Amino acid sequence: MAQKPSIPKGTRDFNPVETARRNYIFDTIRDVFALYGYRPIETPAMENLSTLMGKYGEEGDKLLFKILNSGDWMRGIDPAAVAEGNYVANTAKISEKGLRYDLTVPFARFVVQHRNDLQLPFKRSQIQPVWRADRPQKGRYREFYQCDADVVGSDSLLNEVELLQMIDAVFSRLGIRVCIKLNNRKVLAGIAELIGAPDKIVDITVAIDKLDKIGLEAVNAELVERGLTQEAVDALQPILAIDGSLDERLASLEKLLAGSETGLLGVRELRFVTSATSELGLKAVLDLDVSLARGLNYYTGTIIEVKALDVAIGSITGGGRYDNLTGVFGMPGLSGVGISFGADRIYDVLNALDLYPKETEVASTVIFLNLGEKEALASMKAVKELRDKGIKCELYPDAAKMKKQMAYADALKVPYVAIIGGSELEAGTVTLKNMADGTQKQVSVSDLAEAVL
Amino acid sequence: MAQKPSIPKGTRDFNPVETARRNYIFDTIRDVFALYGYRPIETPAMENLSTLMGKYGEEGDKLLFKILNSGDWMRGIDPAAVAEGNYVANTAKISEKGLRYDLTVPFARFVVQHRNDLQLPFKRSQIQPVWRADRPQKGRYREFYQCDADVVGSDSLLNEVELLQMIDAVFSRLGIRVCIKLNNRKVLAGIAELIGAPDKIVDITVAIDKLDKIGLEAVNAELVERGLTQEAVDALQPILAIDGSLDERLASLEKLLAGSETGLLGVRELRFVTSATSELGLKAVLDLDVSLARGLNYYTGTIIEVKALDVAIGSITGGGRYDNLTGVFGMPGLSGVGISFGADRIYDVLNALDLYPKETEVASTVIFLNLGEKEALASMKAVKELRDKGIKCELYPDAAKMKKQMAYADALKVPYVAIIGGSELEAGTVTLKNMADGTQKQVSVSDLAEAVL
Repeated sequence: MAQKPSIPKGTRDFNPVETARRNYIFDTIRDVFALYGYRPIETPAMENLSTLMGKYGEEGDKLLFKILNSGDWMRGIDPAAVAEGNYVANTAKISEKGLRYDLTVPFARFVVQHRNDLQLPFKRSQIQPVWRADRPQKGRYREFYQCDADVVGSDSLLNEVELLQMIDAVFSRLGIRVCIKLNNRKVLAGIAELIGAPDKIVDITVAIDKLDKIGLEAVNAELVERGLTQEAVDALQPILAIDGSLDERLASLEKLLAGSETGLLGVRELRFVTSATSELGLKAVLDLDVSLARGLNYYTGTIIEVKALDVAIGSITGGGRYDNLTGVFGMPGLSGVGISFGADRIYDVLNALDLYPKETEVASTVIFLNLGEKEALASMKAVKELRDKGIKCELYPDAAKMKKQMAYADALKVPYVAIIGGSELEAGTVTLKNMADGTQKQVSVSDLAEAVL
Repeated sequence: MAQKPSIPKGTRDFNPVETARRNYIFDTIRDVFALYGYRPIETPAMENLSTLMGKYGEEGDKLLFKILNSGDWMRGIDPAAVAEGNYVANTAKISEKGLRYDLTVPFARFVVQHRNDLQLPFKRSQIQPVWRADRPQKGRYREFYQCDADVVGSDSLLNEVELLQMIDAVFSRLGIRVCIKLNNRKVLAGIAELIGAPDKIVDITVAIDKLDKIGLEAVNAELVERGLTQEAVDALQPILAIDGSLDERLASLEKLLAGSETGLLGVRELRFVTSATSELGLKAVLDLDVSLARGLNYYTGTIIEVKALDVAIGSITGGGRYDNLTGVFGMPGLSGVGISFGADRIYDVLNALDLYPKETEVASTVIFLNLGEKEALASMKAVKELRDKGIKCELYPDAAKMKKQMAYADALKVPYVAIIGGSELEAGTVTLKNMADGTQKQVSVSDLAEAVL
């Protein structure tokens, strides 16, 4: 007996029910993307390592899955180097390609490579898997999907408004109640400037991000530890104490940041986005969170993060504005803003809340039992009629024992079982069994479609 | 300036129009799969090399894309081995995973791994990309999609009938006229038996496969070259001369194969499949082709190949019955039959015949021009109303020059451009321009949806 087969750790098989559920998520997101004018692109799973390396930090480089060069990969390696064991320096000699790590760098590469064929602003959507050689753990996989929508070539804050509407539309359709948290990099820069520590913006945000978890005192201690003066920490306190409604907090923030031009610009941007979005009507809760520091190394304006209200899980969608997505590929000055739906976490949320529509679970509406060759051929004709009318159905392919055929129908959760036996064949009818209530009735083949709809 | 970015050879980017066209193909195939009760699964892009190696022959092993182990991949290599240059023996030491080469081996692995959770017969569909380190050339890519449907756990020929109906349904929907060629491995075995060369079945089929291209004389010469006796070649001639309608040819074949039990069984199977399929009604041309030898190393019964009638291109779909798909993973005796649509070639055929429905090309139905902040916000409200009614539309995000905005609308081929300027704002109307005929009219915002449908 051969060894029991398995799949690489951190990867998953999806059975039919799981796949149908996931497709429900992807289709929902895809429909919303299309409704809002975001046009789909696809890029290859493999990118040149020269495209990927150095874009995700040193840690990211290590997490790239690298493809071994075809043929004699060993040719380029010096035996002496192997004796020394310097694998990092030799990786480039045996591997030229890697699996994409996200959809953002491939998108930037796409924009630059096809710049002459693109009409700006370019509203693109992309739903594809990405791969990361991360240590697998609960909710973290080595292969997972990203569902991205980005606009490049437009500075307008209306794009932010639209992206928030899209987030709202997706989660409304899925039935997930969410809170959308907003921040703005310029506000963070203003705060750092205000308290006299403009170079400490990252330290400040990392520390205040923990406010909910560790409390104010611990945050202040950490700030000092991270090199902030006591004066700076003191100056920060009024900002951390801001409270009230969204509008009230924006007003307080505006007062406190009166001395920082950058900070005020950030507040104005936040105000425009929140007021325009609210005016258009949003189901989701909109919130300001000055501790939100997502993607701080590349976001330059709006920062967006979405949390599910009814399930304790990390961010299920995120995004923001960046000003130099394509600069690294030689095309500077292109501003963009985008969001990314985390399909795998959304899947976990939907599973936890059991929010799938019934249809996603049902494969076929009707299964015909197989009572022998002649009966089966008559059934195939009835099946064809139903399919021509768009009704999903099937015939059990073998004239197996009834018990086995019924077990199959049960496993597939079909709403109806249809039987054409000898007497039905003579009468030109079908016995139709309703699997929910167990009732049976005789219907003519031509009335069958109506009977199961 | 950074280097101009590119993608690995043999891979492709798909722009929005191309992606929409491809999604139209995938959606059509997916709809038919679901209509016929084939349930979708997904498997990881990466499989363990122990799953993949040895399944596609020696050549196939070379064409697998292998993933470099994470971390210090060099550790396992002996410097002496590098000096010797034996890369084949060392590949296993630095790579444990590979990209899937097709969907069949992962499906077999899936069935065995999840055998306890599966209800047989299992009708599965799978639409995912595969990767092969083949030399790229016109129409051959290193990343391409397969769209597979298979039933395992059923011997019934009704499965073959159903798969032929599915092929017919897919190509009818796509508008591609096709010929479905059928053969049966048992017929080929019968022929080899009949002419006294049962071990030469592969040589015989390889040679007679060239009949159309090189003619009868050259085929006979090749058969002798391949080690057949002149008697065997003579005995083969009546089979190569079979002519007439499908039924006539089956009848002739039956007479000629009268001495071979296996051969007769093959003819009976072909007759059942063709007659049942015809009785149910097929749009495609059904043909018998005894030279069809596709997948001869694993198909054990029916062999299927589909050719487009109006475009000169290789097979666009293929399939057949196999009796031991899962044996290599320790689960013998499971019979199955399946088909695989070649989405990339189907894409080429649709492009050649320009058969895409108009909708696939159209991103948004309406684009609102942007005349300034106040006008834009009013437009956003109208846009929202349309989107709530399911109409794809967008607002140009920036108050750019009219010429630029109109160029954008032209590039996106929108049917309508909508304008809300100062006077429209006052009157509560929208100026709607029909891009096809250039006409303009004023409509109220509430009548807009009806005006563009």
